[in-house]
Amino acid sequence: MEVKQVLHMNGGLGDTSYANNSLLQRKVISMTKPITEEAITELYISMNAPKNLCMAELGCSSGPNTMVVATELVKMVLKLCRTLGQQPPEFQIHLNDLNGNDFNSIFQVHLPMFQLELQDHETSRGRVSPCFVSAVPGSFYGRLFPSRTLHFIHSSYSLMWLSKIPKEVELLNKDNIYMASASPRQVIDAYYNQFRTDFSTFLRCRSEEVVSGGRMVLTILGRKSEDACSKDCCYLWELLALALKQMVAEGVIEEEKLQSFNIPQYTPSPTEVRKEVEKEGSFSIDHLETLEIPWAACGKGHYPAGAEDRYYDVGSCMRSVVEPLLVQHFGASTMDPLFDKYSKILCHRMANGEEAKFVSVTVSMTRI
Amino acid sequence: MEVKQVLHMNGGLGDTSYANNSLLQRKVISMTKPITEEAITELYISMNAPKNLCMAELGCSSGPNTMVVATELVKMVLKLCRTLGQQPPEFQIHLNDLNGNDFNSIFQVHLPMFQLELQDHETSRGRVSPCFVSAVPGSFYGRLFPSRTLHFIHSSYSLMWLSKIPKEVELLNKDNIYMASASPRQVIDAYYNQFRTDFSTFLRCRSEEVVSGGRMVLTILGRKSEDACSKDCCYLWELLALALKQMVAEGVIEEEKLQSFNIPQYTPSPTEVRKEVEKEGSFSIDHLETLEIPWAACGKGHYPAGAEDRYYDVGSCMRSVVEPLLVQHFGASTMDPLFDKYSKILCHRMANGEEAKFVSVTVSMTRI
Repeated sequence: MEVKQVLHMNGGLGDTSYANNSLLQRKVISMTKPITEEAITELYISMNAPKNLCMAELGCSSGPNTMVVATELVKMVLKLCRTLGQQPPEFQIHLNDLNGNDFNSIFQVHLPMFQLELQDHETSRGRVSPCFVSAVPGSFYGRLFPSRTLHFIHSSYSLMWLSKIPKEVELLNKDNIYMASASPRQVIDAYYNQFRTDFSTFLRCRSEEVVSGGRMVLTILGRKSEDACSKDCCYLWELLALALKQMVAEGVIEEEKLQSFNIPQYTPSPTEVRKEVEKEGSFSIDHLETLEIPWAACGKGHYPAGAEDRYYDVGSCMRSVVEPLLVQHFGASTMDPLFDKYSKILCHRMANGEEAKFVSVTVSMTRI
Repeated sequence: MEVKQVLHMNGGLGDTSYANNSLLQRKVISMTKPITEEAITELYISMNAPKNLCMAELGCSSGPNTMVVATELVKMVLKLCRTLGQQPPEFQIHLNDLNGNDFNSIFQVHLPMFQLELQDHETSRGRVSPCFVSAVPGSFYGRLFPSRTLHFIHSSYSLMWLSKIPKEVELLNKDNIYMASASPRQVIDAYYNQFRTDFSTFLRCRSEEVVSGGRMVLTILGRKSEDACSKDCCYLWELLALALKQMVAEGVIEEEKLQSFNIPQYTPSPTEVRKEVEKEGSFSIDHLETLEIPWAACGKGHYPAGAEDRYYDVGSCMRSVVEPLLVQHFGASTMDPLFDKYSKILCHRMANGEEAKFVSVTVSMTRI
């Protein structure tokens, strides 16, 4: 089974849905807003009163975050148009994710809200700008859009997902589910090489789709350290592996099943991102930044204060992201006990005073 | 509740899904293929080796029919390219339907099949042409696409659906659920006026989206007769009304509920279609034809021979189309008994030797 056939965030609007457990990702989007704002402003001004503006959100998922950036971008451009006394362009917004993403929920819940919000925003200013929204299903490690049609691309917390698990990882990483300090060197190298291949394929595809002078802002779950096995990125998976091992010990999961499971993810350092962009050569880097956000930011905030509750939400957030991958491998019936164990482990570790953070690498680029 | 918030074909892949009960609509598409073929051929030749070709399927629904026309169109153009020794264009295919349509099934089931079929077709000829597919949710009685971006539009069995039930119909059509010879004159007029308003809005919106010289082929469930209450179009609804009345008699459905229900549909004659196209003025008509197809064409053909089975499928076909509208008004629990009665009525009438046909009006046009 290929990653692109399995990977997607939990659909729908229920308790374990991504829509209800993506506060962390929303905060990351807010934190990178100044970078997005600068990029769209410079783009719009450089285009000299364009008649249309075509944007894409890659890895849009399904939930309140799906259209957050699109809403912000449209509002920013409309504000610029007012300031400069220009006619607003027709907006075209493409929402991309893998085929298994819950696009129905987007169309039935989030898109009508987006349209209402823009309408309110606009009618209070006496006009409505046409805004055409479409869904483009497929892997961004291949072409998605016609040549030279996009002006702006945004993607947040998607590009750390690899297109596949490298062969060496499948063969040699039996005791872990991700890179770990105990993983053989070949496993770390194979993960990194897969990231390099995937990310450079991504850049090449986008370079064919983006117009000259077009912008791209990517935020990737990453790490600060140059050590690929640093705690920054591996600790959450290490704790998930612990929960899985408990279930093996209880006889609920077969050991072979666990040995053959690996997470198709690589969390790059800023240096690694820069290297691939420079090597591919189609985009020039305007900004490259890292951001940190504590695990506790996953918390929905409607619990009474206390570390345990806040870290419980880290488990829910992870579940909404990784459940489809796990279900495909271990079966649906193991999910409730697994995430119960996982949340307990998380709360226990955090209660001991440990401090952990998500690290994001944001890169803002211009198509040469 | 607005029609656009309720109307959609039954989703999924189950027994009552549109995907499993849309053989009639598939046959209509096959019968109109020569018209589509002529339009795309003339378009392609007039464009003089275009670099990209952008098509839209409006009211695409969710099932094996969704991508049938797109597949045919792409294959026809590729064949033309081979004949003329030209480089194939990049294809862009937009699939449109209302927001409640089951786009998830399209992306997860039908789109991968489309991609495989094209790949097989292409690789046997030594090349693969990029084909970018997107979903565009929304009512076609409003703008859907950026200005002057479409080359070809196709729509089959969608434009008979009205954007709303006219006020007069709601007030005066208590004894029927559609136009009937017993309906007051104001009801017939109100239905017709709504069709004229909707269809001319449709034409105006499309005229802004289609490039000069672009083509549009529309097939509408219609009628031959100039009498809007002719059996051609009203008989199926009359029999559904009978089934609903039986349920009122049994006390399962309240009489007031039935009195306030009307089908948001108008099945135009070719003359009525021509009149609106000419009045709107953006398109010139290349062909205007009517086609007839017997009700029995709904039959899946895997039953033993016999009228009863064949007409049972007419009931299933109607259910897959109209169930969401009925559920919203009468509740889900009434659907099984309702369609059981409906199929029995259909089979009974047909067994008496009655002959009934679906009439389609197909119009092929060029953007002036």
